[in-house]
Amino acid sequence: MIPKNYPRVIIEAVQPQIDCGRFPIKRVVDEKVVVSADIYKESHDKLAAVVKYRKHGAKVWQENPMVFVDNDRWQGEFEVAEIGPWEYTVEGYAERYLSWVDEITKKNVPGAILTSELLEGLAILKTSAGLAKGEDKAQLNAQIATIEGMMADEDQEVAIDQAICSTMQRLMAKYPDRSEGAECTPALQVYVIRPITRFAAWYEFFPRSQSTVYGQHGTLQDSRRRLADIKQMGFDVIYLPPIHPIGHAFRKGKNNSLVANPDDVGSPWAIGNEHGGHMALEPKLGTWSDWDQFVATCRELKIEIALDYVMNCSPDHPYVTKHPDWFYHRPDGSIKYAENPPKKYQDVYPLNFGTEDREGLWKEMLKIFLFWIEKGVTTFRVDNPHTKPVSFWEWVIAEVHKKHPQVVFLAEAFTKPKMMRLLAKAGFAQSYTYFTWRDSKQDLTDYVSELTAGPMKDYFTGNFFANTPDILPPILQIGGRPAFIMRAVLAATLSTVYGIYSGYELCENEPIPGKEEYLDSEKYEIKQRDWNAPGNIVAVITRINKIRRERPALHNYNDVAFLAADNPQIIAYYKMTADRSDIVICVVNLDPFGKQSSFIHLPLEKMGIREDEQFQAHDMLSDERYLWSGRTAYVELSPSGKMAHIFKIYRW
Amino acid sequence: MIPKNYPRVIIEAVQPQIDCGRFPIKRVVDEKVVVSADIYKESHDKLAAVVKYRKHGAKVWQENPMVFVDNDRWQGEFEVAEIGPWEYTVEGYAERYLSWVDEITKKNVPGAILTSELLEGLAILKTSAGLAKGEDKAQLNAQIATIEGMMADEDQEVAIDQAICSTMQRLMAKYPDRSEGAECTPALQVYVIRPITRFAAWYEFFPRSQSTVYGQHGTLQDSRRRLADIKQMGFDVIYLPPIHPIGHAFRKGKNNSLVANPDDVGSPWAIGNEHGGHMALEPKLGTWSDWDQFVATCRELKIEIALDYVMNCSPDHPYVTKHPDWFYHRPDGSIKYAENPPKKYQDVYPLNFGTEDREGLWKEMLKIFLFWIEKGVTTFRVDNPHTKPVSFWEWVIAEVHKKHPQVVFLAEAFTKPKMMRLLAKAGFAQSYTYFTWRDSKQDLTDYVSELTAGPMKDYFTGNFFANTPDILPPILQIGGRPAFIMRAVLAATLSTVYGIYSGYELCENEPIPGKEEYLDSEKYEIKQRDWNAPGNIVAVITRINKIRRERPALHNYNDVAFLAADNPQIIAYYKMTADRSDIVICVVNLDPFGKQSSFIHLPLEKMGIREDEQFQAHDMLSDERYLWSGRTAYVELSPSGKMAHIFKIYRW
Repeated sequence: MIPKNYPRVIIEAVQPQIDCGRFPIKRVVDEKVVVSADIYKESHDKLAAVVKYRKHGAKVWQENPMVFVDNDRWQGEFEVAEIGPWEYTVEGYAERYLSWVDEITKKNVPGAILTSELLEGLAILKTSAGLAKGEDKAQLNAQIATIEGMMADEDQEVAIDQAICSTMQRLMAKYPDRSEGAECTPALQVYVIRPITRFAAWYEFFPRSQSTVYGQHGTLQDSRRRLADIKQMGFDVIYLPPIHPIGHAFRKGKNNSLVANPDDVGSPWAIGNEHGGHMALEPKLGTWSDWDQFVATCRELKIEIALDYVMNCSPDHPYVTKHPDWFYHRPDGSIKYAENPPKKYQDVYPLNFGTEDREGLWKEMLKIFLFWIEKGVTTFRVDNPHTKPVSFWEWVIAEVHKKHPQVVFLAEAFTKPKMMRLLAKAGFAQSYTYFTWRDSKQDLTDYVSELTAGPMKDYFTGNFFANTPDILPPILQIGGRPAFIMRAVLAATLSTVYGIYSGYELCENEPIPGKEEYLDSEKYEIKQRDWNAPGNIVAVITRINKIRRERPALHNYNDVAFLAADNPQIIAYYKMTADRSDIVICVVNLDPFGKQSSFIHLPLEKMGIREDEQFQAHDMLSDERYLWSGRTAYVELSPSGKMAHIFKIYRW
Repeated sequence: MIPKNYPRVIIEAVQPQIDCGRFPIKRVVDEKVVVSADIYKESHDKLAAVVKYRKHGAKVWQENPMVFVDNDRWQGEFEVAEIGPWEYTVEGYAERYLSWVDEITKKNVPGAILTSELLEGLAILKTSAGLAKGEDKAQLNAQIATIEGMMADEDQEVAIDQAICSTMQRLMAKYPDRSEGAECTPALQVYVIRPITRFAAWYEFFPRSQSTVYGQHGTLQDSRRRLADIKQMGFDVIYLPPIHPIGHAFRKGKNNSLVANPDDVGSPWAIGNEHGGHMALEPKLGTWSDWDQFVATCRELKIEIALDYVMNCSPDHPYVTKHPDWFYHRPDGSIKYAENPPKKYQDVYPLNFGTEDREGLWKEMLKIFLFWIEKGVTTFRVDNPHTKPVSFWEWVIAEVHKKHPQVVFLAEAFTKPKMMRLLAKAGFAQSYTYFTWRDSKQDLTDYVSELTAGPMKDYFTGNFFANTPDILPPILQIGGRPAFIMRAVLAATLSTVYGIYSGYELCENEPIPGKEEYLDSEKYEIKQRDWNAPGNIVAVITRINKIRRERPALHNYNDVAFLAADNPQIIAYYKMTADRSDIVICVVNLDPFGKQSSFIHLPLEKMGIREDEQFQAHDMLSDERYLWSGRTAYVELSPSGKMAHIFKIYRW
């Protein structure tokens, strides 16, 4: 048997593409998707190609022409105008008219008899005339008649001119005969996300700590009153740890002690008691109407709510009695608590994703998401997704997106690199990163380049948290206030999405000795803070967030460009808009203890700055201005003064 | 709907793999295929993996264990024991027993009650006992009984020891419970080729030029008498241009002139006349019995025959009358001759692969291959495959391989890089290359590295021809004898497969002025030669081929390693066997006009040579020996003396 179809136009290596098209790339709404592909064919035919795209489910493709780049590589682009899933592909075809124009032009030497060639040309013109519409159709047919007339008069020269003239080329380009072509199948997928997914400042806080009355359990109303200050600092997203009822059995006491006092509030991550589980509110936080008011105020202030999604159940969780089969059992029939031998977490039961009642469990997990979306939550920070099957996440995120394509999932997966990447491919729009532990110049450069300049930038958005309730990194423990400023600048400018956990602005840094854990961690007790405590860096953070909002260059996640700096303690990098109209250069002192100075080296060509040109570097943090010219600039930063520059480049 | 299966073991990035598995990789029979993959899973379960492989069509998989390398990467290997198509894949699974051993070992602290854990362990042991066979089964069951006994006696310590002892671990490794695992599907393909595909010296000659009687048309018998000399020079494959009847219509005269004299023999590439077409012999060459004797002598001498496969038809070809619909027609009904405007080739009709009778044409093209295979041809040099649909080649090569997996196809595609690669992916085991035009050190280094050190080495074997009847490259035109020696050494040592076209050993280099074409080209006339002509380099070529045969390092196509040499006119590189027992260093003077000297720098670690060690470099071309030590060596080469060294490194 010979093959039924035998594509003669070859289409290969379509980019962007993840794992042979297995997963969608991600783009922000209204962003351009630049598509390239190898397109070629046996023989010397002229080719043409289009990139085709449509919203998922749409019948008809839209298409844009692709242009030849070099070495059989073609490129085109399209815009994704709506959030949700889209698809795109590439079609290439033999451009019979252009091939013919090329042939007859070469053959058209004095004395050549080209009647036969002209007849072939007419056939091609007629095919396109058949495809043409209205005005164009008429014009094409008229032109064809003219050419036939000239051929009758044996006026070959003019007939050829008429057939290849620019008018004809313009018309023919609109109605090509694509019968000899090929399309890349299956189509590739792109998931279109909201801008806030790719540009946002996050602030994490515990509602129960927000009371202004000493020793009192904070409420959603207390939290609501905090929102204005948080917005004032310039944050776009507030992230709330679980706000559900907390289990009693094996409740953890202060500093994670195994025995809790009666008044200990316990860990919000041990979810569920007699008041309910994942779809209930901890009564001490307030009522559903308090929640609704909280959501309303967030809406007014344009603050987005990110809720923690945690699959732990306390032994008191309603599921335990209603669905014992959703949990792991010991041979004696008792339910297994979480363990990481020799560590035991008796206050938490993990769920068994392989349970006989997988249908029931998985759909319930989906229901929790849908419930909170109805309640006004649009972002979920998912706790430890890497300990559940990835295929569950791929399914549940797709199910949520069917009804709510705008919902954002952040993967809190502090695990091995390949699992972190896979979770992002499977649907998580944002991911926690290793940033928290990267503090040397080399490590920061390598890691940020991996995230923003490699294949990951097509599907993985790193949310750079400077601290979390679980992580007080060594650099903050030892570096104090200068380190807090330094790390805030790095987080906020190296990535477009970053966050802090409340207390950061107060430079809280007392650890459990020898650990990365906070002493008297808020995970196990209520913490009340004086937001005006001396030494706070609220003003700095406010400034950083303002600069981020105002500078378009800092909205660009991709391709952070590092600058050579002679001093290993000084890290320098720049971002700019595609049109180079906005250039921001960041210079940070990585040494929280000492003054550091360095020459930094500027790639003027890339910035579009002339070698002999004078330009102004305006430090938007300190409001100081420097006049620079040439390829090198001198910088000096110190803990006692400035730890960082964020320069805007002014040219005139 | 929730997904039916939800693989928890992830298998990604299986290597080697071409275009997402679309095409097979190639390996030589008995070669090892090293397979690696990312294999991981949510949670902390221990994993195990195997590489599975089988001859295409075999029911059962064979398998070898994979070992963990690093960062979720696993590696294994298998051998391909027969030529033809094979397939391979990777299976990974949760190793429940090892995970359990790990868990209970960690939990087994003084005072711990582990009855429940032991019961879970017993369940795992019993599952494996169920899978076990004969002796092992008995032993496992006995051990299980022992453990149960000890548990009855509440002798937990010993019970655990018995369950995790080395005997058990050995037994359990043989019968793992793979129920929680995943396999990479579809399987990947590897096509296994004969050794001669990857290591051979080719010699091209025109049978009609082999008569020893001046002016007489040579025959297959004349050619047969030449074979001993060719074998004597060390060639393994003889390549014959077409030996079919040659058309009369528009026959080309000497030097490609449009008008032929009555006695002009014409171009063998214009196939077909009243004596037949592609399945006939040019009568002047002899009869089928002459052919059979020719083949027999080749067999005796262990010379392989490569026949030219050319899809041109002369206007006199039987197909033209029998199957006019296989050709392109002009509007006036006449058949189209080949053109590359403004060039015309009236003596040749191209075939139309899109003909209505595609079934008839394609099967006839297949028939030609099968016909000549029956006649003793095992290799085909395919003329201009890039001007036919690639899907035709993929089909026809697969069809031939169904019956004759040993047949080798060489693509004569001097075209753009991506088409050359695609033809190799589609089934051509060997390809012509750009080597003929690469003569600067940088160009040679870049190109050879691209072929032998990149993805191409898995599917593309470059056959380095130093010259062809169509190509007399500038370097040979201007460089004379020294250039012929230099290019022969480069071709024969940079690739494991190389060739020359007869006349090369006589340093024939008279071009049509300003062209790469030979003057008085043998394509259009008979050429008779004095094989002992003064200045011939038969002895050098014989020596080169002898060195190639004797040195295992020169049988290794992959990873040609270039050495730093201070002089840009001196190129140096080495090859070695995997065990480093055979190391060959080549040093070539790229300047055919002048003496050149240079220090070359040796990566001693890679060669496994100590810094303080003395070793001998034996130039197998000149039989001179040098005593070397350390990282640099001095070389001096000149046209009047030696143009190249081929050193074997001796250590003691």
